[in-house]
Amino acid sequence: MSLMINRQRLQERLHTLAQIGRQEDAGIYRMAFSQGDMIAREWLSSEIQAAGLALQVDPAANISALWNPNDSEKRVLMGSHMDSVPGAGHLDGALGVLVALECVQCLKEQGLPLQHAVEAVAFTDEEGRFGGMIGSQAMAGKLTPAQIRQAKDLEGHKLEEVMQQLGFDPQKILQAERPPKQLRAFLEVHIEQGPVLDRMHLPIGVVHGITGLFKWQVELLGESNHAGTTPMNMRRDAFQGLAEFSNQLPRLLEEHGTRHSRSTIGQVYVSPGAANVIPGRVEFSLEVRDTDKEVLNDLALACRRTLAAVAQRRGLMMNYQVLSELTPVQCDPSVVNLIEQQAKNLGLDYHLMPSGAAHDCQMLADITPSGMIFVPSKEGRSHSPKEWTSMEDIEQGANLALNVLHALATEAN
Amino acid sequence: MSLMINRQRLQERLHTLAQIGRQEDAGIYRMAFSQGDMIAREWLSSEIQAAGLALQVDPAANISALWNPNDSEKRVLMGSHMDSVPGAGHLDGALGVLVALECVQCLKEQGLPLQHAVEAVAFTDEEGRFGGMIGSQAMAGKLTPAQIRQAKDLEGHKLEEVMQQLGFDPQKILQAERPPKQLRAFLEVHIEQGPVLDRMHLPIGVVHGITGLFKWQVELLGESNHAGTTPMNMRRDAFQGLAEFSNQLPRLLEEHGTRHSRSTIGQVYVSPGAANVIPGRVEFSLEVRDTDKEVLNDLALACRRTLAAVAQRRGLMMNYQVLSELTPVQCDPSVVNLIEQQAKNLGLDYHLMPSGAAHDCQMLADITPSGMIFVPSKEGRSHSPKEWTSMEDIEQGANLALNVLHALATEAN
Repeated sequence: MSLMINRQRLQERLHTLAQIGRQEDAGIYRMAFSQGDMIAREWLSSEIQAAGLALQVDPAANISALWNPNDSEKRVLMGSHMDSVPGAGHLDGALGVLVALECVQCLKEQGLPLQHAVEAVAFTDEEGRFGGMIGSQAMAGKLTPAQIRQAKDLEGHKLEEVMQQLGFDPQKILQAERPPKQLRAFLEVHIEQGPVLDRMHLPIGVVHGITGLFKWQVELLGESNHAGTTPMNMRRDAFQGLAEFSNQLPRLLEEHGTRHSRSTIGQVYVSPGAANVIPGRVEFSLEVRDTDKEVLNDLALACRRTLAAVAQRRGLMMNYQVLSELTPVQCDPSVVNLIEQQAKNLGLDYHLMPSGAAHDCQMLADITPSGMIFVPSKEGRSHSPKEWTSMEDIEQGANLALNVLHALATEAN
Repeated sequence: MSLMINRQRLQERLHTLAQIGRQEDAGIYRMAFSQGDMIAREWLSSEIQAAGLALQVDPAANISALWNPNDSEKRVLMGSHMDSVPGAGHLDGALGVLVALECVQCLKEQGLPLQHAVEAVAFTDEEGRFGGMIGSQAMAGKLTPAQIRQAKDLEGHKLEEVMQQLGFDPQKILQAERPPKQLRAFLEVHIEQGPVLDRMHLPIGVVHGITGLFKWQVELLGESNHAGTTPMNMRRDAFQGLAEFSNQLPRLLEEHGTRHSRSTIGQVYVSPGAANVIPGRVEFSLEVRDTDKEVLNDLALACRRTLAAVAQRRGLMMNYQVLSELTPVQCDPSVVNLIEQQAKNLGLDYHLMPSGAAHDCQMLADITPSGMIFVPSKEGRSHSPKEWTSMEDIEQGANLALNVLHALATEAN
């Protein structure tokens, strides 16, 4: 026997939240602690209370809806974020929060016996107005006082001041940490934000891991010269060095990566930048992702070797700077298995896949067995007002989540 | 028996002209009709008169030193330009003018019988303050009244107004045209502006042709997407298209070009230009040169086909715009042979080579048999205060030029 969510209620809530912070056709502006975010927080809080669930706001301003009929010690958490990038769509994050609320409310309404409490969470600042995943990092005990002190947005507003003005106490953010022994598991529903499920015509993605990455800024230095008077074999053309390296990226991924590996050169500056002058210098970004830490290390080594070999063969100097490194996160195998099992019970076709984007889930994975469910993104669109998922796909993802949540909350542990 | 120039006199004139328009370490600022150029014109005129040669200034403000002892109808012309780019070295153009003056003066001093008159010319605006090669184009009958009317510098000063203020009559520029039947040949001495002779340790380059070129602005349009969530095989990465095309350039030159072919991608813009976004659009310059018109046409066709194939394979849209096309110029075989023969007579090792840069010679080649002599540029440096050629190399080039000029002026034609 399978449980089912209330599709009508979920659809109405999605519709209501989609109007909050919207700037007509330009999309949703609900950056953390902005006016839109604050209205969304008030609205969510009243929905939680109207549903008869316990409203809790922790010191990191994470908002929870708790259903704990037996006063259990352990909780199964489920959630995502309501804050958005500027000009966002209506589903990124919001879907995961409202599905979580719907699932917790369903368990309450259906009066089923539970072993653990269930809690729907809306995390603070996932999208990064003040650095990203502030709420989930605080909950996982991964923030330092210095990070909080230094956090500010692009316009220079400090997190501490913004929170104070809104009645929060930033001194207490670290107190949002949850002891792992009080947690049973974490589950997040999210739109895929990529094209894979849409192309495969599948309603469900079961996430087995969240990709890590390294991001380098690379400089190749050759020699600027007259494009007419310098023979091809006397050139030290920095751009041709970059072009050769770029062409080796597919080989590097084939030899050292997995089918989950990605590499992107997204930023390129060529100087001096005249049509009749051989480029003496290029600067470019190299971003490589994979779900496996060892694979990522191997890819980094291979990229360094190839860059050095190309530079040496072409008489170029090579410098690089590591801009960021994120360790990949494996979802918990028992949670992944449970999601797969419940999908099969519901007769839902699914694809076992990595998450290429970062999510609150990767913070929670550090303190409790965690898993994610993806629903398809039309044409892979995200961070855009054109972001879209059909209500049929949303309903199937939410039903799957409800059954997973119920299973997690009733398993003896 | 070989003729020899007066090394001391040539060296002193080079030294004097190198001080005119100089801004200390920043190099020489002697753009056409600038204060520096006008002082250089006055100085050259007085040198011509002091040498006992006939000073002539034509309607295009080209300055000539004429030696015509027999009132011959035909003239052998020799020369280059005194105007410079901003921040120039002391030899680009200036060397060719002063060597020409030295050669004509030597022929006068040595009282040798001549069949044709000899004329040293300093051409107006070779470097392009008002478009480039104004003087030599006027002499070759290649200017239109509209070009003259529209010509202005980067600061918006009109050529017509500048010439008028300096006492020239721009309405008469077209009258500078020389009837081909009054010309026997044209000879230009120039620094190579490339590294070839310096690397080969050779004092002389005999130029067989001046490269033509095509310059395109190419746009590749793909799709911007999230670098984490978009699998490699679902990408339409415009920069990877450019990288693939760049890597094909050596093959294109090998299959369709000659050893004189050059290709350069000097300008590259990648957008949107974020490390974590797949580039949806690149725009870049493609400049290809060769000395042969057919080869250049073949290269253009091959580049178009390769660009189209790369674009199609990668799901990119390709647009390109022809920014400029210059037809290659062949030097006259009889003049080239004569220069080679005289070099052998003088015991000078030489290299038969193309000119990768544009020169006044390519305008004169349209109306009279023309040739060029290169002397080495230290490390290929040019358009820079670091431009340098040893006085030994300059003397050898000037001696070769003198003997070629003498041979051209005494041959029966």
